[in-house]
Amino acid sequence: MVRVALDAMGGDLGVAEVVAGAAKLSREERPVRILLVGDEAAINTSLAEHRYDPRWIQIVPAKGIVAMDAKPRAALDGMPNCSINVAARLVRDGEADALVSAGHTGATILAASDCFERLPGIRRTALAAVYPTEQRHGPRGDPFALMLDVGATLNATAEDLVGFAVMGAAYAQIISDNDAPQLALLSNGSEPSKGTPAIVEAHKILSKMDALSFAGNVEGLDIPRGTVDVIVCEGFLGNVVLKMLEGVSEVVTDIARDAAARKFLWKMGLTMLSQGIRQLRSMTDWKQYGGAPVLGFDRVVIKAHGRSNARAIRNAVKVAAKAVDRDLAGQIRELRG
Amino acid sequence: MVRVALDAMGGDLGVAEVVAGAAKLSREERPVRILLVGDEAAINTSLAEHRYDPRWIQIVPAKGIVAMDAKPRAALDGMPNCSINVAARLVRDGEADALVSAGHTGATILAASDCFERLPGIRRTALAAVYPTEQRHGPRGDPFALMLDVGATLNATAEDLVGFAVMGAAYAQIISDNDAPQLALLSNGSEPSKGTPAIVEAHKILSKMDALSFAGNVEGLDIPRGTVDVIVCEGFLGNVVLKMLEGVSEVVTDIARDAAARKFLWKMGLTMLSQGIRQLRSMTDWKQYGGAPVLGFDRVVIKAHGRSNARAIRNAVKVAAKAVDRDLAGQIRELRG
Repeated sequence: MVRVALDAMGGDLGVAEVVAGAAKLSREERPVRILLVGDEAAINTSLAEHRYDPRWIQIVPAKGIVAMDAKPRAALDGMPNCSINVAARLVRDGEADALVSAGHTGATILAASDCFERLPGIRRTALAAVYPTEQRHGPRGDPFALMLDVGATLNATAEDLVGFAVMGAAYAQIISDNDAPQLALLSNGSEPSKGTPAIVEAHKILSKMDALSFAGNVEGLDIPRGTVDVIVCEGFLGNVVLKMLEGVSEVVTDIARDAAARKFLWKMGLTMLSQGIRQLRSMTDWKQYGGAPVLGFDRVVIKAHGRSNARAIRNAVKVAAKAVDRDLAGQIRELRG
Repeated sequence: MVRVALDAMGGDLGVAEVVAGAAKLSREERPVRILLVGDEAAINTSLAEHRYDPRWIQIVPAKGIVAMDAKPRAALDGMPNCSINVAARLVRDGEADALVSAGHTGATILAASDCFERLPGIRRTALAAVYPTEQRHGPRGDPFALMLDVGATLNATAEDLVGFAVMGAAYAQIISDNDAPQLALLSNGSEPSKGTPAIVEAHKILSKMDALSFAGNVEGLDIPRGTVDVIVCEGFLGNVVLKMLEGVSEVVTDIARDAAARKFLWKMGLTMLSQGIRQLRSMTDWKQYGGAPVLGFDRVVIKAHGRSNARAIRNAVKVAAKAVDRDLAGQIRELRG
């Protein structure tokens, strides 16, 4: 039985939404034991509004929340018993197997690095993002691919990029049931000579690693197409690219809605167009993809999107449980060789 | 009367398409004198297929084309009288005022740097791209913004970024009739402390330049939204972002077409949806934006997209003429201060 420490206080939509996600999951066929960490009274109030199975939910009291605009180090040090600190310690002390938070990204990563060890051979942790693509991936035909690092670490070395590649491949194997995920470096041309010195050097190293299915370099075009299963890049670039994808998704939805409102006056046309919009939207809806893993620690850490609704929280907890079940850390160690 | 040297041989669609663009423009109300540079027989054959006004079109013979996969330096040196070399020399020698090519990007920039001088205070030239945005820009309400450098120059210094900002602002002023284009640095956060050391330093310098309307840093989200008129970044990042935008545009069109084919069986619905697709498409259609300027030389250089059709070629020549008319180089000098 996997136990997940869930920071109940993080998330832009407040404690009620996180609790709703936990309640939902508790009534499903294959539940996960959830430790809801945060303000006991607030959690109880929210729980009272939902049907849930109390066998799978336990409240662990904590005091304080890291605000979205806080400086992570100061916040964590100033509030030793805030929800993310308590949740991370539960995992460190073996009372839970994985950490999930929709709160402050920097604080989540910092709390994890205060409490957990890095895996051997991994110099740097990475934040990975699951994003929608045109092509489908893996035996299940998932309409998404993985990109890392999107955590805005500047100046990744060749060794860092290789570490990201290994961790991304391991995560894709586990989450998409994909035995040999294709991975590539993001560059400004497909030739091995293209890119920064770190990319060129990482290309050489990855080409020799038999445990990985390395497809070489890909370009910007290949990101939305989804030419490969895992795209590896430095964090600054990944951050810009990921935010741009979010922006494009918003803009496409806006344009389609606008076009519908202005041009298509017939009821039937509107209905039909709205189906198209829904389909586009569901393809670009990160909520269904279960959050972003923070890779490189000896424990499973999932950062759910700040705007996660109940369904997104539920998905993030499920993904965390799956990563524990299938031994993500062991898989990374094995691929690292 | 502006005279444009147009490389007739570049372009994926062949000489016929370039000639068609020139022929089209020659019959318009405000024509431009076009020097069609390339294989005389081929140009004449294509010209014979179109109505055109011979007063505005002149053929300048050249021998050889730089292939799309050629190494630029070797190709230019090996074929001194190839079309791009001849066209660049026409501009150098004062027989034409601007250079336009839909051919090999690297060869176009290299031919320009063989023949032209860099503007004072500009250490590095930049390739700029006009791309579609949700928000509109300038007094004319243009649905596009400018991004530079997208030319894959690695490791831009703070001074390089400042130069890009100045050139981008000057170009936006001229092309969009926008007296005070808002410009920003692309980074991983809006705070001045965010980004690489070069970005942080460029932020400081730009904040003090009164001739510019500097809006600080923007993030990936702001690219498709079009929060500012000019986005400045290092070439590697710009290259990835631009190619990604092209990819997103393709994917959105594919998805919409696919949804139409699978779901909407009624004729009326199909018709209506196809209007929506057309609108989306026209917003993401680079063909109407008239090519990418290569900025930083003392002459006007416009790189049209390789896949330019006649209309795109015509637009690129018009843009080149406008940049000459309004003295782009003088404008850059003035803003540089």
